[in-house]
Amino acid sequence: MNESTGYEALTVDTLPARLGKVAEITARVGADTAAWQIDEVGDGNLNLVFIVSGAAGKLIIKQALPYVRLVGDSWPLPLYRAYYEYHALTRQAVRAPESVPSIVFFNEVQALIAMEFLEPHVILRRKLIRGERVEGLAKFLGEFCAQTAFRGSELSMQSAEKKADVALFAGNVEIPAITESLVFTDPYFNAERNNHTLGLDTVIAQLRADVALKVKAQQMLQRFASNTETMVHGDLHSGSIMSTATESRVIDPEFVQYGPLGFDIGMLCANFLMAYFSQPAHRGGDLNEYQRWILGVIKKTCETFVTEFKHLWENERTGMLYPASLFEDQGHDSTPACDAVLKGIWTDAWAICGIEMHRRCLSLAHNADFEDIEDAAIRAPLEARNLMMGAELIHRAAEFKSATDICELARTYNNKDFL
Amino acid sequence: MNESTGYEALTVDTLPARLGKVAEITARVGADTAAWQIDEVGDGNLNLVFIVSGAAGKLIIKQALPYVRLVGDSWPLPLYRAYYEYHALTRQAVRAPESVPSIVFFNEVQALIAMEFLEPHVILRRKLIRGERVEGLAKFLGEFCAQTAFRGSELSMQSAEKKADVALFAGNVEIPAITESLVFTDPYFNAERNNHTLGLDTVIAQLRADVALKVKAQQMLQRFASNTETMVHGDLHSGSIMSTATESRVIDPEFVQYGPLGFDIGMLCANFLMAYFSQPAHRGGDLNEYQRWILGVIKKTCETFVTEFKHLWENERTGMLYPASLFEDQGHDSTPACDAVLKGIWTDAWAICGIEMHRRCLSLAHNADFEDIEDAAIRAPLEARNLMMGAELIHRAAEFKSATDICELARTYNNKDFL
Repeated sequence: MNESTGYEALTVDTLPARLGKVAEITARVGADTAAWQIDEVGDGNLNLVFIVSGAAGKLIIKQALPYVRLVGDSWPLPLYRAYYEYHALTRQAVRAPESVPSIVFFNEVQALIAMEFLEPHVILRRKLIRGERVEGLAKFLGEFCAQTAFRGSELSMQSAEKKADVALFAGNVEIPAITESLVFTDPYFNAERNNHTLGLDTVIAQLRADVALKVKAQQMLQRFASNTETMVHGDLHSGSIMSTATESRVIDPEFVQYGPLGFDIGMLCANFLMAYFSQPAHRGGDLNEYQRWILGVIKKTCETFVTEFKHLWENERTGMLYPASLFEDQGHDSTPACDAVLKGIWTDAWAICGIEMHRRCLSLAHNADFEDIEDAAIRAPLEARNLMMGAELIHRAAEFKSATDICELARTYNNKDFL
Repeated sequence: MNESTGYEALTVDTLPARLGKVAEITARVGADTAAWQIDEVGDGNLNLVFIVSGAAGKLIIKQALPYVRLVGDSWPLPLYRAYYEYHALTRQAVRAPESVPSIVFFNEVQALIAMEFLEPHVILRRKLIRGERVEGLAKFLGEFCAQTAFRGSELSMQSAEKKADVALFAGNVEIPAITESLVFTDPYFNAERNNHTLGLDTVIAQLRADVALKVKAQQMLQRFASNTETMVHGDLHSGSIMSTATESRVIDPEFVQYGPLGFDIGMLCANFLMAYFSQPAHRGGDLNEYQRWILGVIKKTCETFVTEFKHLWENERTGMLYPASLFEDQGHDSTPACDAVLKGIWTDAWAICGIEMHRRCLSLAHNADFEDIEDAAIRAPLEARNLMMGAELIHRAAEFKSATDICELARTYNNKDFL
C-alpha cells in the first residue's frame, strides 16, 4: 500500500474483502463474497484485470498499476490514467451509444473501474489470428470512429465545453508521451527499448536513411501532440476491440487525449493491414478468402466512416466550425467544406496508419499478429511487406482517393518480396 | 464594486488611495500620493489604462473591465483576462528578452497589472499613419515572432511543461471566442455587429459568394481553435506595438492562447499591408518612398523570422519534436525538417494574413489606418484593394515562396481599381 495515497494493488485474495461492501458491485455480482470467484486475466501491458463472478453475475475490475506491466517498476506510470479512462468511457458512451462497456463503479484513489463483463466476447485480434469473421464489424467501427470524432470536436461541441475538456485531458501527460515516443519516434532510430525480427536490418536501414520519411513522421507527431481537434481513443487497435460472431465493443481508452480527427481510424486500419499481411503464417487453404474479408472490413469501415460523418455534418453541425451562416443560410451547399474536412482526416489517417505499421514491428510493443509467428524466417518477410507499405502510406498520405486505393496497395505488397 | 469578488473599477480619483500603499508601486512612482498625477488614456477596446506620474517616476496601471469597452456592458467579458495577460507577459519576457514592458505588480482580484511606462514610445499604428519610420523595427518584430513561436513550442519546451501550459491557457475561453467569431467568421456573412464602408457591397458580395474562400477561412479557424503549437500573442497588430524612432516593444497580450506557429506573424503582416494600402489617403509627395519602406519592413520581418527560427532550430531544439536522434545523430542534415516546419508556418501565416485583412474592413473592430480616412469615397477603393488581395492570400496561401512574393503582390493590388 502507498501510505500517502491509500492506493493498494488488488490481488485475487484481497479483492472480495476490499470490494465486497460496494453496493454497485454487490448489486451486479451478489452480496455473498464467499461465493465470488476471482480470476486475474490482464494480458495487456499496463493493468490488473480481474473477472469477478458471483451468484448474481459477473463484472470486470480493472485497476491501474503504478508502472508499465510489460516492463516492470523500472518504468513508472501514473495511476491517474484510470481517471482519464473513466472520463473517456463516459464520453464515448454518450457519443457512440452501445459501443463501450458500461461503468458500474469508479474509485479514483484505487485507480479502479468496475465495468460490464462482456460475454462471450473475445479480443478481436485473437479472432483475426484464428481466421474468424465478425458480422457487422466494419459498420460498428466506422460509426464508432465517425461519431466519436465528430461529436468530440467543435463541429458539434460548444467551444467553452470543448476547451474545458481539452484542459482536463491535458493533465494526462505520461500516457500520450508513450505514444509520442514509441509510435512516432523510436521506430526511426536505434532506441534502447526497440526490438525487431532477425533479418529485417536492410529494410530498417532503408527506412531510417529516408530523411523525407522521418520528416513526415515527425510532422505527424507535431500534429498529434498539438492538434486537439477531438477526443480520440488513442489506442484503437484490434486488441482494444472485443467481439462475438455478431457484436463488437471498444475497450481500454486510457490513451485518450484530444488529437487529430483521423487518428483512431488510421491506427485501426493499420492493425487490420497487419492482420492481413500476417495471415500466410497462420493458415493454409482459406487464405485468399479470409485476406479478402479483412480488406473488405477496411474498405467498409472507411466507407461507413464517410457516410456517418456526412450524416452528422448535415444533422448535428452545432459547433462554431463551418456554421450554416456561411453556407446554407447564404444558399450555398456546404459539401465542399465537408469534403475538405474529410480530405484532411484521411491525409492524417493514412500517415498515422503507416507509422503504426512501422512501430508495431520496430519499437517496443509488438502485436500478436506477427509475434505469434514463431519462426523468424517466416515472420521477417511478412513484416517487411508491412514495413514497406507503411513507408508508402506515409509518403503518399495526401494522394489516396479512398480506402479502395489502400486495399489495392495492400494486395500489391502482399505479393512482393523484400528480403 | 462587485460585492462577491471585491473587484472595483479604478477611477482617476480613487486610484491614489487604492494603490498608494502598494510597495512595488510607490517604489517606482513615489510614496507621496498627493503628488501623483493620474491620466486615463485607454483608447483600446477593452480596458482602463492609467498613467500614474509621481515624484519618483511613472507607471502604467492597466485594469480589465467586466465588459467590452467598445460596445458597453451589453457585451460582458470576464476579468480573468488580466490573469492570462500577466502569464503571457512573464513568458514573453523570458522567451524574447526586452520585448515587452516589465511587470511591477499584479492583482488578480482587481484584474490589474502595473507595468513599466514606455516613454517616449507611441503606438506604432499612429506612426504608420503619420508616415514615420522606426529603425530596427523589422529585426525586432521578426525576432519576437520567431523566438516566442519557437520557444513556446515542443520544438523547445519539455512536453509536460507545455501541456500544463496548454491546460492553463485553455481556461481563457471568451477572449479567443472573440477572435474566432470576429476574425474568422463574421466577415463572411451579414453578422449583426459588422459594419463596412459605403460602396464596398459588390466586393463583399463577391467574397461571400466564393465558397472555396469561405472553406479555407474556416479550415484556418479549425486550425486556430485546435492547434496548440505554441503560445501566441493573439492580437499582434500595429496597435499592440509601441515604438520610438529606434526602439519597439510589444504590449497587450490578453488575446494569448496556444495556437498555430504562424499566427502572430501572419496577423502582423496583414496590419503592415493595411498601412500600405491606406497610405494614399494619408499623404502626398513622399507616398512611394514610404510605401516602399513599409513593404521593406514586411520583407525584412519575415526574413528575420526565418533566420532566427533556423538559428533556434540549430541551437535550442531541446523538445521532443524532430529530435537529433532521428537526424544529426544518424549523420542526416535536419534542414529538410526545418524547411517543412517553416513551410507549414508560412502557409498558415498567409491565410491568417488574408483573413485579418478582411475582418478589419468587414467585421466589428476596424483599424485606424482606414477608419481615419473620413471620406468614404476615398476609403472604399483603398479598402477594396486590401480585401481583394486578402482573398488571393487565402486562396494561394500554400504557394508563396517568400515575403518577396507578398510584397510584389501588394504592389500589383496597389495599382488596381475594383470599384
